[in-house]
Amino acid sequence: MQEPASPSETIHTDAVIVGAGPVGLFAVFQLGLLDMKCHVVDILDRPGGQCAELYPEKPIYDIPGLVEVTGQELSERLVRQAAPLGPVYHFSEMATGLERQNGGWQLTTDAGTRLQAPVVVIAAGGGSFQPKKPPIAGIEAYEDISLFYAVRRMEAFRGRNILILGGGDSALDWTLNLQPVARRVCLLHRRDRFRAMPDSVNRLRKLVDEGAVDLRIGQVETLHGEGGMIEAVTYKDSEGAAHRLECDTLLPFFGLSMKLGPVAGWGLEMPDGLIPVGTETFETELPGVFAIGDINTYPGKLKLILSGFHEAALMAQKAFAYVHPDEKLVFQYTTSSTKVKKKLGVAA
Amino acid sequence: MQEPASPSETIHTDAVIVGAGPVGLFAVFQLGLLDMKCHVVDILDRPGGQCAELYPEKPIYDIPGLVEVTGQELSERLVRQAAPLGPVYHFSEMATGLERQNGGWQLTTDAGTRLQAPVVVIAAGGGSFQPKKPPIAGIEAYEDISLFYAVRRMEAFRGRNILILGGGDSALDWTLNLQPVARRVCLLHRRDRFRAMPDSVNRLRKLVDEGAVDLRIGQVETLHGEGGMIEAVTYKDSEGAAHRLECDTLLPFFGLSMKLGPVAGWGLEMPDGLIPVGTETFETELPGVFAIGDINTYPGKLKLILSGFHEAALMAQKAFAYVHPDEKLVFQYTTSSTKVKKKLGVAA
Repeated sequence: MQEPASPSETIHTDAVIVGAGPVGLFAVFQLGLLDMKCHVVDILDRPGGQCAELYPEKPIYDIPGLVEVTGQELSERLVRQAAPLGPVYHFSEMATGLERQNGGWQLTTDAGTRLQAPVVVIAAGGGSFQPKKPPIAGIEAYEDISLFYAVRRMEAFRGRNILILGGGDSALDWTLNLQPVARRVCLLHRRDRFRAMPDSVNRLRKLVDEGAVDLRIGQVETLHGEGGMIEAVTYKDSEGAAHRLECDTLLPFFGLSMKLGPVAGWGLEMPDGLIPVGTETFETELPGVFAIGDINTYPGKLKLILSGFHEAALMAQKAFAYVHPDEKLVFQYTTSSTKVKKKLGVAA
Repeated sequence: MQEPASPSETIHTDAVIVGAGPVGLFAVFQLGLLDMKCHVVDILDRPGGQCAELYPEKPIYDIPGLVEVTGQELSERLVRQAAPLGPVYHFSEMATGLERQNGGWQLTTDAGTRLQAPVVVIAAGGGSFQPKKPPIAGIEAYEDISLFYAVRRMEAFRGRNILILGGGDSALDWTLNLQPVARRVCLLHRRDRFRAMPDSVNRLRKLVDEGAVDLRIGQVETLHGEGGMIEAVTYKDSEGAAHRLECDTLLPFFGLSMKLGPVAGWGLEMPDGLIPVGTETFETELPGVFAIGDINTYPGKLKLILSGFHEAALMAQKAFAYVHPDEKLVFQYTTSSTKVKKKLGVAA
């Protein structure tokens, strides 16, 4: 894995993959086998997509050759398999724009990254995971200034007076992780029970007992502040009494919901939110733009991870024609090709 | 795995799979998930098909989630994955006849087994594998006694005086692999050039220089021995001179030829020896007869194991309609369905 380039410059590569779920990761492998370098953009802060995010510890039984595998382990295996092909990952970035550029495509992200390539592979699953917002009036005014739905760099929160909202794994994990870094951490949840890993709950209780974390029970009613800078909230406790609580940073963790997101605005016809493709190349109606995995549709389509793997392999054949228009593609088996083995860094 | 029934009776089942290679094995799993019982017929004496037969110990790199896996290990994993679905295997039997029977199909084998089912899945790869035999008079008398066309267990050759014939990858690989195990290894090839991986050729040259492998140039004319036990061969060198060479084991590696075999006579149109199918169900022109894996063809087809896996999954959906015509199929993920977990024998 290489370091991503600075967001201000335009990056030129062979293929841009939108989505670092299992199918996007395997697309890196298949494209790499055919001498195409990939950049991968994902809104999450690590690889695995839906299967690592939604069920990291739940076993999957229908990946061929893996009798039982968790979403987390499958992702790790696919990252390892793709690693010799040198993908560059852009995590915690949302692919926002797609435009025709220099006979190929330019994909931009909400972090300002500009990626140019002849091939774009949409492997975005059910779309992008987006935080559910708490129903508090005027919350938008604070977003990305003093209110954040995700923690990208812990350092950014050093010395802050943080109020965390929620009672699930994310709320507890960030309470535990930010406590040593922040000046003060308060966790506010609507009840004194948590839907989180027992170990996290135990560690939270201990920090509360020690006075290192301030635990409050209640629900936020009003935000106070100016120019996007939060100064305090008012919350109601279970008996309806109002309390004012000072803070300079607000982190609500109310879960993620899957939204199609910006893909919907890229000029593709998407009946039912899915991208129709043919089963020969999985190319969309836009030349050089492919859709594989759960986001595509064709007669017989099943939303199985293994179908996305097959789609990635066939897609790579056509992608090759865009990236290496003057070369002839010779089909080779990984088990017998010396060239392939060199690419994968295994002894010939 | 249950015991096969006696060949004299007619066996009724849900689906008959021709071929116990990776794709046939995964078809057992996919059909089983949808409540269909399978019988599997294969000409080889064990599961794995082409990949276990041709490269049991050679790594494959492009199975998603398995960074490096041998054909042998992949087969074992797929057998284990299919096991809870209770397939019945008929090994060392060649599927010979296919006829319409009772609104479904009857498949017969050369061992006299008769299997009746509404669904037949042809997962026969390139057909059945047969070694190319060197044109030496009387060679059959030694076959499977002291002359072998494949190495199944290296240990069986410990301490032997082995003569290997051929100049391709198999001949060189087995020369290199058996040299440490055998008492003596001699490689006989018709010329002093090899069609093999450069690295293998280099390693061979080194062993020859060190005197660890005896390299001869020439072609076998006559076999000497009794009761199937080889004692020596006579070969002619490039100048026509005859030489006698002692050995107790003969391993000719003249390649395998894949023969389509009886499938060709089942009434299917097979241009180029492949069965055309659609990509929605992978059904052939015969209703209830499907073709998946290397034996089928459709626009974009790649002969990849992972494509056969995908084809197996989509095939099973349509197969269900033949086996359970009155039931509605509800798509379920293995990770969340209690019913599926029960079938696989894992805790719900």
